[in-house]
Amino acid sequence: MKKITPKVVCAWIKQRDDETNKGDYGRVLLIGGNERLGGAIIMAAQGAIHSGAGLVSVATHHVNRSALHARLPEAMFIDSSDTDYLMEVLPQFDAILIGPGLGLDETAQTLLHLVCEHTHAQQRVIVDGDGITLYANGEYPTPDATLIFTPHRKEWERLTHTNTESLDDAKNQDFADELHAIVVLKDHRTRVYIEDDIWQNIYGTPAMATGGMGDTLAGMIAGLLGQLETPKHAVLTAVFLHSYIGETLAKKKYVVLPTEVAEQIPYYLKKFSETDDNPY
Amino acid sequence: MKKITPKVVCAWIKQRDDETNKGDYGRVLLIGGNERLGGAIIMAAQGAIHSGAGLVSVATHHVNRSALHARLPEAMFIDSSDTDYLMEVLPQFDAILIGPGLGLDETAQTLLHLVCEHTHAQQRVIVDGDGITLYANGEYPTPDATLIFTPHRKEWERLTHTNTESLDDAKNQDFADELHAIVVLKDHRTRVYIEDDIWQNIYGTPAMATGGMGDTLAGMIAGLLGQLETPKHAVLTAVFLHSYIGETLAKKKYVVLPTEVAEQIPYYLKKFSETDDNPY
Amino acid sequence: MKKITPKVVCAWIKQRDDETNKGDYGRVLLIGGNERLGGAIIMAAQGAIHSGAGLVSVATHHVNRSALHARLPEAMFIDSSDTDYLMEVLPQFDAILIGPGLGLDETAQTLLHLVCEHTHAQQRVIVDGDGITLYANGEYPTPDATLIFTPHRKEWERLTHTNTESLDDAKNQDFADELHAIVVLKDHRTRVYIEDDIWQNIYGTPAMATGGMGDTLAGMIAGLLGQLETPKHAVLTAVFLHSYIGETLAKKKYVVLPTEVAEQIPYYLKKFSETDDNPY
Amino acid sequence: MKKITPKVVCAWIKQRDDETNKGDYGRVLLIGGNERLGGAIIMAAQGAIHSGAGLVSVATHHVNRSALHARLPEAMFIDSSDTDYLMEVLPQFDAILIGPGLGLDETAQTLLHLVCEHTHAQQRVIVDGDGITLYANGEYPTPDATLIFTPHRKEWERLTHTNTESLDDAKNQDFADELHAIVVLKDHRTRVYIEDDIWQNIYGTPAMATGGMGDTLAGMIAGLLGQLETPKHAVLTAVFLHSYIGETLAKKKYVVLPTEVAEQIPYYLKKFSETDDNPY
Repeated sequence: MKKITPKVVCAWIKQRDDETNKGDYGRVLLIGGNERLGGAIIMAAQGAIHSGAGLVSVATHHVNRSALHARLPEAMFIDSSDTDYLMEVLPQFDAILIGPGLGLDETAQTLLHLVCEHTHAQQRVIVDGDGITLYANGEYPTPDATLIFTPHRKEWERLTHTNTESLDDAKNQDFADELHAIVVLKDHRTRVYIEDDIWQNIYGTPAMATGGMGDTLAGMIAGLLGQLETPKHAVLTAVFLHSYIGETLAKKKYVVLPTEVAEQIPYYLKKFSETDDNPY
Repeated sequence: MKKITPKVVCAWIKQRDDETNKGDYGRVLLIGGNERLGGAIIMAAQGAIHSGAGLVSVATHHVNRSALHARLPEAMFIDSSDTDYLMEVLPQFDAILIGPGLGLDETAQTLLHLVCEHTHAQQRVIVDGDGITLYANGEYPTPDATLIFTPHRKEWERLTHTNTESLDDAKNQDFADELHAIVVLKDHRTRVYIEDDIWQNIYGTPAMATGGMGDTLAGMIAGLLGQLETPKHAVLTAVFLHSYIGETLAKKKYVVLPTEVAEQIPYYLKKFSETDDNPY
Repeated sequence: MKKITPKVVCAWIKQRDDETNKGDYGRVLLIGGNERLGGAIIMAAQGAIHSGAGLVSVATHHVNRSALHARLPEAMFIDSSDTDYLMEVLPQFDAILIGPGLGLDETAQTLLHLVCEHTHAQQRVIVDGDGITLYANGEYPTPDATLIFTPHRKEWERLTHTNTESLDDAKNQDFADELHAIVVLKDHRTRVYIEDDIWQNIYGTPAMATGGMGDTLAGMIAGLLGQLETPKHAVLTAVFLHSYIGETLAKKKYVVLPTEVAEQIPYYLKKFSETDDNPY
Repeated sequence: MKKITPKVVCAWIKQRDDETNKGDYGRVLLIGGNERLGGAIIMAAQGAIHSGAGLVSVATHHVNRSALHARLPEAMFIDSSDTDYLMEVLPQFDAILIGPGLGLDETAQTLLHLVCEHTHAQQRVIVDGDGITLYANGEYPTPDATLIFTPHRKEWERLTHTNTESLDDAKNQDFADELHAIVVLKDHRTRVYIEDDIWQNIYGTPAMATGGMGDTLAGMIAGLLGQLETPKHAVLTAVFLHSYIGETLAKKKYVVLPTEVAEQIPYYLKKFSETDDNPY
């Protein structure tokens, strides 16, 4: 088991080259947010934008447009009921996140099918939250894209159709292989099953135990996928930063809100891009 | 009469255990906010979220969704006209607050009936604002849940069908018993009638005399109910923190807004969780 | 001519008594904001709320509700097309502001008529912006309420049906008498015509020359009317604070936005309530 | 080639005269923001308002009104589908920006036609983003107004119907002449082709490579056009400030968001208005 240390992450966060533009930092699509759960996809979008994604589009129920733009004018809106348009633009994105606040109804299923069927091998797809529950219970084709799941324990049970009590690292690794996916198993000390390695997060705090924290993490992964060298780097860096920032904020706060973690990302990315080890 | 001192409260605010998740910090439902008074339930939600509730859902008129999510993406939205759905999910919540901006019309009455009839003994129900006026004037069954009322003087008059001038602590206590409820009688020095004790708040400032301050307090109680050991601890801690923070902010401000009190909660919870007495 | 000095204003801003509640600090109604100009009434509402008004209601076009509550959950919303409801609640308010973003159409005229006809002698009415233009050109009864106009030069021309070039203090005073009103003539150095006195503002900066600054001032007057001893005190204190805060902020900013002025009000009210003269 | 140095810009940013009002600092109209891209015009509006424009109106799809006012109550809203009204008020504006989030459909084309045909010689028109793509591909009359294009490389290719690889300064200058326009060619080191000069921006950072940065710049140009002595001064000052602020913020942040740049404008305008050279 490898540890996600500051030293490891520092090597992956590069300083940006001068001769670059927003197209070089990832086109990201976030799909989620039904009539009740619009906040989830908004928090994911904040995670992606503050992580430095070049262009972020949000496909969500139209009732969420006003709140999305009131909080994040940087995000572009797509009506998630317009599946024709979504299918048309889908190939343009480097990273696609589906799941935060997606719900479990037929519309949600249609969207997940669309992503599973129509993404291509150069793309990366993150399935989070309700997306995992749907994937666990439905018949979805394995996407050609690099696939990432971000379950918490209960969602992992659903996805593996087993009880987490009976699961150990070897079995989790096997399930990840079976799913042809990178698995981020969220917990007090999150573990990432990737290729033939298991990476353990060494940060995190119960002050982060509040609704939306996972949505923010999923958005951060999406935001970093277009910037870091490999999906592995992006996933591990997101997991690290998310909990490192949370732990830092928790020194002064009893509960840390997801939106507060997101606001700090650019400062920490900067610090870690400039040193070889923990700058704090 | 007992005083709600920092020393007393410090003992109740525990540091969070590492091996916990958002499900351990309370599922809270807030019901209120009609077409005119959406701000009230938004302020209550901010109080609950910043108090550290694990999951906060807001059942309100659909016109309030955009503003709710623009301010608080952490909150989940429920259309308050969808009583079937509300009834279905009601048993899942640890704490239910009804009243802020609820209004007095038939829809409001239906919602209050729903809560009074369908909550169970393991739940806690706070009735605030318009909810109190309705309860005072209607025929609502006493909920099986632990019941908390948060009236100001006028609402207490309505609820007791008497004149507060003629009321003393003994009579208030009797009325609280009759109502089978904890009563938070809001005033310059708020008193809490609970079990066989009367607790007096020793903080508070007229700089807090502004619309929405009570909604925030009600939300804070709801948010702490899922975290602290007993309803008594949650109610007294909320009353204490609300006025303590207000008084602190009032050192620099002539008027303190409810949203400003809410923003400070996590800092104060942290401080009080780490000491035995007033840390300031 | 008298000067509105810090010393004068300090004497009027009292410390709040302990045994008071939100009802003691004014019930304020703000009317304005059509389909295009909702921002104006939102800025007025912020001025009123941050000035410490106890309860603030905003009667505006329903399209403005979401933005109002997203910025100011403390404000209560009234649909301005519901004139029956407005007429019913009108007598309850201590101060009524009509005009910011009101527009000039028939709906706007109906609202101004409603205010002019149905307010009573114990109330205070501020007519600002489009309200002044309408009043100047229409046949509106002089309200029984204490009447305050807040014109800039062009609006004063309309209201007096004359050219400001030809106007001097004596004539302005005469016009104010004729209008049975307090007149706040906004300018680089605003003058207030009140009773038999002319008061000159000695602060203000061209950094405040930006849209919405007058709306904020009008809201501040409304917010202070329910708190200070007399309308004169409220009007002069609002004029003073508005420009004093603007001038202070302009030491670091080339342009000062109305919303920034509003945010500072509670700090300045506090300072001025505690000293006999300029505390800065 | 001339460099846009702090020294050059300082001479252009004047201190405001005391005897001025909002009418002296420009009436600005921003046109853009369709059903998906409302954030773009909101960011442009923030750029214009924080640059000190006296009065800012935003013509956009009506679905964007709530988010616009939630973020910027200072902005006035115009429904972009109401072309009759737009045509009626168009002559009143000093500066018109068209393009951010405009889209490419028929409605967008109608709006661009309206601006190209109905602006007069005393006005200034900035064509940005989708407006450039439309202008490149359609048959639009050259406006009588002073014309400014703000393309990035790809848009410049479209506008010149050539490949930027094959373009040098002389050719760019020729194309600018042909277009009868000032051209701001956005890049790592933006160049401005204006009259017979080429001005090179010496600031900028890849931390600014994120969606919306160009919208903010376009809004800043619009906002300064009504304030500085000539269009040249306004364009060059906006380009300078935008990248100077971005570079300064990037000292602490890995990615700088457009809305963060906008918030800083008033501080930098102030500093540069008070010195002869770089104050930092």
